[in-house]
Amino acid sequence: MRILVLGGDGYLGWPTALHLSDCGHEVGIADNFARRQYDHEMGVGSLVPVYPLKVRTDAWEELTGRRIETYHGDLTDAEFTREMLATFRPDAVVHFAEQRSAPYSMIDRKHAVYTQQNNVLGTLNLLFALGESERDIHLVKLGTMGEYGTPNITIEEGWLTVEHNGRTDRVLYPKRPGSFYHLSKVHDSHNIEFACRTWGLRATDLNQGVVYGQETPQTARDARLATRFDYDAIFGTVLNRFVVQAVLGHPLTVYGSGRQTRGIIDIRDTVECIRLACENPAERGEFRVFNQMTESLSVQEIAETVVSCFPGQATIEHIANPRVEADEHYYRVTHTALTRLGLRPHLLCDTLIESMFAVVEQHRDRIDPDFFTPTVHWTSTANEMHRRHVDGVAGKNGHSHQLGESVLSPARG
Amino acid sequence: MRILVLGGDGYLGWPTALHLSDCGHEVGIADNFARRQYDHEMGVGSLVPVYPLKVRTDAWEELTGRRIETYHGDLTDAEFTREMLATFRPDAVVHFAEQRSAPYSMIDRKHAVYTQQNNVLGTLNLLFALGESERDIHLVKLGTMGEYGTPNITIEEGWLTVEHNGRTDRVLYPKRPGSFYHLSKVHDSHNIEFACRTWGLRATDLNQGVVYGQETPQTARDARLATRFDYDAIFGTVLNRFVVQAVLGHPLTVYGSGRQTRGIIDIRDTVECIRLACENPAERGEFRVFNQMTESLSVQEIAETVVSCFPGQATIEHIANPRVEADEHYYRVTHTALTRLGLRPHLLCDTLIESMFAVVEQHRDRIDPDFFTPTVHWTSTANEMHRRHVDGVAGKNGHSHQLGESVLSPARG
Repeated sequence: MRILVLGGDGYLGWPTALHLSDCGHEVGIADNFARRQYDHEMGVGSLVPVYPLKVRTDAWEELTGRRIETYHGDLTDAEFTREMLATFRPDAVVHFAEQRSAPYSMIDRKHAVYTQQNNVLGTLNLLFALGESERDIHLVKLGTMGEYGTPNITIEEGWLTVEHNGRTDRVLYPKRPGSFYHLSKVHDSHNIEFACRTWGLRATDLNQGVVYGQETPQTARDARLATRFDYDAIFGTVLNRFVVQAVLGHPLTVYGSGRQTRGIIDIRDTVECIRLACENPAERGEFRVFNQMTESLSVQEIAETVVSCFPGQATIEHIANPRVEADEHYYRVTHTALTRLGLRPHLLCDTLIESMFAVVEQHRDRIDPDFFTPTVHWTSTANEMHRRHVDGVAGKNGHSHQLGESVLSPARG
Repeated sequence: MRILVLGGDGYLGWPTALHLSDCGHEVGIADNFARRQYDHEMGVGSLVPVYPLKVRTDAWEELTGRRIETYHGDLTDAEFTREMLATFRPDAVVHFAEQRSAPYSMIDRKHAVYTQQNNVLGTLNLLFALGESERDIHLVKLGTMGEYGTPNITIEEGWLTVEHNGRTDRVLYPKRPGSFYHLSKVHDSHNIEFACRTWGLRATDLNQGVVYGQETPQTARDARLATRFDYDAIFGTVLNRFVVQAVLGHPLTVYGSGRQTRGIIDIRDTVECIRLACENPAERGEFRVFNQMTESLSVQEIAETVVSCFPGQATIEHIANPRVEADEHYYRVTHTALTRLGLRPHLLCDTLIESMFAVVEQHRDRIDPDFFTPTVHWTSTANEMHRRHVDGVAGKNGHSHQLGESVLSPARG
């Protein structure tokens, strides 16, 4: 199949592109490099050095003989989006190309508006590009489990059969998202469902849990193929941040009671889920939703798992929760569609976490523990991105500068 | 109370501002005059001449001694939005300031993206302006019954208690909107609910039915106080268009079978509902939803009502439905919240329709029947705005020019 990965330079887009290419698909990547730009804005970079996209795709071709076509542009540029589809002529479009951090979207008005503008209007342009050209192309869109919030009933896969006053209907699962980022994905889902219903597009919405891990069999083949690893309070996902804190001998900072429960998924399962979705497309006119997660754990349980696996001493510290979210809640999720298609989940086990300790240990001199501290408070409309930042100027010890350089030019690092 | 009406120069914003002012409230109006701009873009104007906002507010002051403050600007301009709130210091903000036509949003990519950008990001700026300044201000937001679509269960007022596998939850009512415009309102509702839950804002979302009528006791006092009356296939609501077709001796064009059922409301009830919402505010942190409609009728029934009231001959013609919507469906709506607050509905009766015939008769020389014909087809991603338009140049007989002039300068007409 010809598969175009939008946001293919990011944390998950890149390993997905390699996995699909490794499985024999013709893969293209589009990216506007926004994720690398956020590093500059925040003054923090990936723990693992990330090579420029050209270095990455050249290395992949050198190692495998497989070429990955690249497109540099932005989905909010309708002309770019339309021409890219016309040139690459994909069978499936995998859409990772969105701002993906909840805290980033909650910094202030500017970042909230940017997130919804970028995500919602970019996806809208993409829907029109599909509607205008080839309506048979399968859209595989990354959503998030955070769209659902924490309802008191089972979270079904995107649709819910409701009985009310003796009548029934199958409706889009009611959502209660927890940030302007999560909201942007809810908006996307509604727009996509409408496009399927009205134009006969085919789409799969993958509501993904919190991803952990940094390596896939493909990215592990060469340092130039590594994907990013974020540990900061804005882009770092919770388990990845805990592993970094453990290695540095810092307490693992749990927000609030830690009884908040979330769906999680191993990075190796993420890339496999996307392959399964692409190879088993939705029907024409179908808006299909999969819950892309493999198990549910509370934040406390995740922290305790990291502590118990860590070979040294590690402690847990509870800090005030900067988010507005339910502290204790029911959480039960249906996630059988992807296993029915063949997914064999990697559950959170010692093996993976131990391999992560090694990755972090290798790059420990690149860690700035100041970035562990959450600075974005949900109840405020004007937050600092980082406590050392003053009026956009990086902090006192030049740390950001050093990180910035290594992010920009890892090959010279 | 101090009440700021955003979009106060429009079809409903203007009569609402007058009604609130007449009831003794201190009223301010903000508008970017986008609605007048769409007239120029389409080459069609309001059937009833609409005077410039300054002429309108001056006339109101001359007649009543009551001043209405005006602000010219755009909600997508965050600075303007913030400063206006800081200057006017409202107790309630009534938010009509959105692109409000479903067909307009379905013309093509540009109009869809404009609609969602304008509506969603404008409202997001407004939420931040409230969150940053005075979180006690009551937001009264205009939504639409079209957000719900036509579910097979009763449409409740915004929230639904769901039982699933023996557990229950109160969730946002699941929506299935029918155009990019309706979707923009669904996105707004989600954003507003989040802001109430997270920042403690207070909001009322008014899901309004299809409005009909052109006069309220206030607008009828002077020609300079008239509100607009759209009969074209893009901005004209269905009953208003039928009345114009009847007066002109044209068949009333019903889309498809006409069995599509919709909630409707008299313009005099609209302005009263908004007064009731303002004077009975939502609690802090509450996201309250009212279904602002008074009765449900099928399009065929609306057409038949107009035919039976019309003193002359009138016929009904069924044309292919340009929209993608259910032809025949269940439709039952709960709409008791506003009557509980004191609304005494005007149901669709001969009196109102007959007064509308008179209004249309008075301006019949301004009607261009070419604009009755729908040109925007839901299944297409690239529609013409009007069949006479070629590459943005107005048509053969100069009609648009004549209309354009009378819209711009009705005082000279």
